Amino acid sequence: MQNGVRTPRMYDLITKKKRGGELTKEELRYFVKGCVTDDIPKEQQAALLMAIWFQGMTDAETAELTVAMTESGETMDLSSLPGVKVDKHSTGGVGDKTTLIVAPLTAAAGLTVAKMSGRGLGHTGGTIDKLESIPGFSTSLTMDEFFDGVRQNGLALMGQTGELAPADKKLYALRDVIAAVDSIPLIASSIMSKKLAAGTDVILLDVKVGSGAFMKTTEDAEKLARAMVNIGEHAGKRTEALITDMNQPLGLAVGNSLEVAEAVEVLHGNGPEDVREESLMLSAELLYLSGRGDRGECRSIAEETLNSGKALEKLCAMVTTQGGDDYVIRNPSMFLQAPIVQEVLAPADGYIVGMDAESIGETSVMLGAGRETLDDAIDPAAGILLKKKYGAPMKKGEPIAVLFTSREAAIDGAEKRFLEAISVGKEPPAPRKLIYARVEKDKVVRY
Amino acid sequence: MQNGVRTPRMYDLITKKKRGGELTKEELRYFVKGCVTDDIPKEQQAALLMAIWFQGMTDAETAELTVAMTESGETMDLSSLPGVKVDKHSTGGVGDKTTLIVAPLTAAAGLTVAKMSGRGLGHTGGTIDKLESIPGFSTSLTMDEFFDGVRQNGLALMGQTGELAPADKKLYALRDVIAAVDSIPLIASSIMSKKLAAGTDVILLDVKVGSGAFMKTTEDAEKLARAMVNIGEHAGKRTEALITDMNQPLGLAVGNSLEVAEAVEVLHGNGPEDVREESLMLSAELLYLSGRGDRGECRSIAEETLNSGKALEKLCAMVTTQGGDDYVIRNPSMFLQAPIVQEVLAPADGYIVGMDAESIGETSVMLGAGRETLDDAIDPAAGILLKKKYGAPMKKGEPIAVLFTSREAAIDGAEKRFLEAISVGKEPPAPRKLIYARVEKDKVVRY
Repeated sequence: MQNGVRTPRMYDLITKKKRGGELTKEELRYFVKGCVTDDIPKEQQAALLMAIWFQGMTDAETAELTVAMTESGETMDLSSLPGVKVDKHSTGGVGDKTTLIVAPLTAAAGLTVAKMSGRGLGHTGGTIDKLESIPGFSTSLTMDEFFDGVRQNGLALMGQTGELAPADKKLYALRDVIAAVDSIPLIASSIMSKKLAAGTDVILLDVKVGSGAFMKTTEDAEKLARAMVNIGEHAGKRTEALITDMNQPLGLAVGNSLEVAEAVEVLHGNGPEDVREESLMLSAELLYLSGRGDRGECRSIAEETLNSGKALEKLCAMVTTQGGDDYVIRNPSMFLQAPIVQEVLAPADGYIVGMDAESIGETSVMLGAGRETLDDAIDPAAGILLKKKYGAPMKKGEPIAVLFTSREAAIDGAEKRFLEAISVGKEPPAPRKLIYARVEKDKVVRY
Repeated sequence: MQNGVRTPRMYDLITKKKRGGELTKEELRYFVKGCVTDDIPKEQQAALLMAIWFQGMTDAETAELTVAMTESGETMDLSSLPGVKVDKHSTGGVGDKTTLIVAPLTAAAGLTVAKMSGRGLGHTGGTIDKLESIPGFSTSLTMDEFFDGVRQNGLALMGQTGELAPADKKLYALRDVIAAVDSIPLIASSIMSKKLAAGTDVILLDVKVGSGAFMKTTEDAEKLARAMVNIGEHAGKRTEALITDMNQPLGLAVGNSLEVAEAVEVLHGNGPEDVREESLMLSAELLYLSGRGDRGECRSIAEETLNSGKALEKLCAMVTTQGGDDYVIRNPSMFLQAPIVQEVLAPADGYIVGMDAESIGETSVMLGAGRETLDDAIDPAAGILLKKKYGAPMKKGEPIAVLFTSREAAIDGAEKRFLEAISVGKEPPAPRKLIYARVEKDKVVRY
């Protein structure tokens, strides 16, 4: 980069994009590099991001932007690890504990799971927070510990390191300030730059859609899924996406140790059907993408592995290796319970015809289960256990949920918020799908 | 403005505008104030400006933005001056010396002309530069000198002071860096914030359209004119716009002292017909807007004032009062001539069917008549005298223009550039209008 010509060049990029032109690989690299080094003034960065918000990006632009972001920092080299390295990533939802099931299940079935996960923010939870509710469990591993864990168990889970895709951190912070977060190519490149830097061979994306997801319509969810699959395949990774429902929380548990306990129930062969089914779908798809057979065979492998108890054993092994106490995994009732437990009662006779999952996620944050800013501490025992979900009949006064918290001052507000999130009708609502579509490189299969 | 809520509020403004919403008066005031004080980070300012570039602004928004910009600094109080205070403003062209005629003409006819003008930049000239080619003439007046000049002659012309509309200076500098200059509501508010701050009762806008103007189509020119007229009328000023041709230079002279000499010719009753006609139109319209009669009567007053020689006497009086030597005004051949004078010869037989006025303006900058950056010095004697204009027949080898410069190294490049600006055809082209339309508060009259 040359001083002096730098600013005029950025001016040309903004002009091109605002008029609907396509930025080249070199132009996108210049932009990303200038953002990381701060050589491009923030106002020019902001102007280009806003122009992208309006004009969008072609598949080629999105892919090149992502590669440039990936290469802005360190990338994981997993080549010394055996087997097919796989990753499953959710775009963020409420009650989504599938990673706690899919990761040990696929590892037990012979895939290599070297996975970095994020923390929760706002109404969405994060796998790292959930795992940290297990006493002693550490997600802050050195690279040696991480690789050793994978070699020993075929499975390790750690928090994201700041060295991966630093351009994403900078661009996201800027988008957050200038109201340019909600752009599909920018969301896709943000997620995928970290996934590519994490170095797996296979990437399976779980794109959530609905009231509790960032994507509110299946149309937008498909667009995001296609953008991300395109990026992954462009970078030579086997990439697919499932579009799954987030119009209500997944399962019955929302909150960290509550969700671990529910995941363990599923690993025991019990637990809510939606969590079990979605976990099996995701696991089977990872096996399929890793070349373990056709989709039917992979579904059978996933079911057998779950039913055999080997997935549960794999989770216990990982917990032990990463310093945690597997006693709570084998006996989830031993998780510390929150001091305040309050039932929410049905406000009327009828059926639940709508659950605003985002509001329910926010209710759990009020109870202490999540964070509003990245510095907030969380209460592992706080959260919600649903007694009724979408479509369920209820009688006025019967319990529809239980709230767990240590915040006495928050309980009334949380109950009110929860009730506002529930819509009650006289008739049972139309059933809703759990999985809407599978997005492959050149194909969308709608269920 | 409160610290802490400031940034979130700006976030809301960006969100509203990017979704096509209308910003309120209070929101626009908050934005302008935050730009002037630098309390709003540049990246948020840039994001909002880019969102405005895409979404545009309603008439009400544009007017309120302008008022907020006007009130960001000092405003001129001309109420102590007698008569109707009038201003005429051109959006910038090549060879436009009408202010040198219209200002003394209307002052001679009894209007009060207390006018601030700008310098030229890029291919467009500026009245202040033209006036400064008159030996001794000062455009840097104190406010007392300015007011005294107006009281004595009904006419004074000075350079713009930095205290008027400081928000415009800041916003323009930012737009210039982020490629957001070419937005009609932002151009309109930029121009009008300074016009409103200058404090006249009547504002007549000369919106140039064509190859040498910022507006390339009459449609865009009308939009800009309507936006500006709307702003002026909203602020209680009698405001109108004429849309005039800038597909070729106005008149034959391009360059500072060359243009003063041409303006003086017109004041003597001679000179090119287009300069005379446009000056009379603008003068008559200012008289009409000042309540001096119907348009026919005002046209007669303008013609009589020009023919009587009183307009020329008024220019001489202003020049003398502001320290200049009126000898060169009375005898324009006494202007210092450039040392290098070179004819440009017709490249072929035929007709001039196109003149790229922007390129001709840039040719004059190469010769030393203008500046590329605000710090460049200009050569008052440099420029171009056209021998042929649009539609004129020519024989190969006959002179079509004369270049004046002191830059020997520039002459060949300038000649080449000039010839590239000329299109030659076999048939005479269709005649072109000088004035396209008049834009009033609620009406557009197309000629």
